[in-house]
Amino acid sequence: MPELGPQHMESIGTKEHHFVDLPIPVGVSNRHIHLTKEDLEMLFGVGYGLNKLKELGQPGEYASKEVLTVVGPRGVIEGVRILGPPRKFTQIEISMTDAYRLGLKPPVRDSGHVQGTPGVAVVGPQGVVALDQGVILAARHIHMHPDDAAEIGVKDQSKVKVHVPGERAQVMENVLVRVSQEYKLEMHVDTDEANAALLQTGNEVKIIH
Amino acid sequence: MPELGPQHMESIGTKEHHFVDLPIPVGVSNRHIHLTKEDLEMLFGVGYGLNKLKELGQPGEYASKEVLTVVGPRGVIEGVRILGPPRKFTQIEISMTDAYRLGLKPPVRDSGHVQGTPGVAVVGPQGVVALDQGVILAARHIHMHPDDAAEIGVKDQSKVKVHVPGERAQVMENVLVRVSQEYKLEMHVDTDEANAALLQTGNEVKIIH
Repeated sequence: MPELGPQHMESIGTKEHHFVDLPIPVGVSNRHIHLTKEDLEMLFGVGYGLNKLKELGQPGEYASKEVLTVVGPRGVIEGVRILGPPRKFTQIEISMTDAYRLGLKPPVRDSGHVQGTPGVAVVGPQGVVALDQGVILAARHIHMHPDDAAEIGVKDQSKVKVHVPGERAQVMENVLVRVSQEYKLEMHVDTDEANAALLQTGNEVKIIH
Repeated sequence: MPELGPQHMESIGTKEHHFVDLPIPVGVSNRHIHLTKEDLEMLFGVGYGLNKLKELGQPGEYASKEVLTVVGPRGVIEGVRILGPPRKFTQIEISMTDAYRLGLKPPVRDSGHVQGTPGVAVVGPQGVVALDQGVILAARHIHMHPDDAAEIGVKDQSKVKVHVPGERAQVMENVLVRVSQEYKLEMHVDTDEANAALLQTGNEVKIIH
């Protein structure tokens, strides 16, 4: 290994970052479920529609008033909120902390990529759905409008590094950029990632270049 | 802001790190309690001694068979393990995830620095202790023997950056180095930090220079 003297080590931890000048608001995603219309009806009854609790950061997305119980091989989590509107696939996004509690080992996946992921039982007021797949740790990502992407020179599916300031400062690597006309600038992390970095919804982070 | 073309952005997320050639084993700290002899006797009875369950990474430290219930203003966590031997101060180290569950807002602190931290009620089989302080988020840190410290040119209380490889790769900044003849090389992180980075006890990380 290289010889390192104390004077060399002076720079450790103090090296400055060079940031892209576009503060990105953070949205912390608590555990949640996306349901198909079919699974929604299995759990709540035929013809049931979700009731909106509040709008989320991305246009059209909302938290519903409805919650479900998720049952894994080792534990149960009650009150898991459904996000609307219904989707073409049923997907459960949890944290690794939740995964230990349920007794599952879900992979890190981008939304919608549920092939080969663990299943789980989901219990609603009118029925139960035994999913054979659908549980993921959501890969952290930045939603970005094409105007923002063009301004900073990234495109859909780019990977960037993101700096989180503060007492538990860190650089998150492999952060996926997702670009769409439908998107508003926002970085999504799960509760483990938020808690590890002491991030809360509305805090701002920056891309490093 | 600076003009950034796509060719500039090519380097984002791919820039290589330069590592100090000393792989550091990780120890994940689950929530736990250190007790004074006085508090131990309040909770378990006069003259009570802890029973060793298993040795921990640092010489002399052990997980005891005994667990306690911690009661916060918003929630309760059962089965919180006591680490021995007894110390000069009672201290409860939890994750931010635990803190939300209990309804507390503990600061990030180095072990032993409990002045002004939140209190909590601790319940044992023979009594209850109402602590007026002692709950912390333990600051991540590296235990290091003086030989290792000398080899890589750091000293007690140095701050370093640590790289975690993998799918949720990250660089943890502000990582405290603690040097003592009593210590064995090991980085301690809490369960939020471990889960956010998909780290498990025994994984290896490296210091960046």
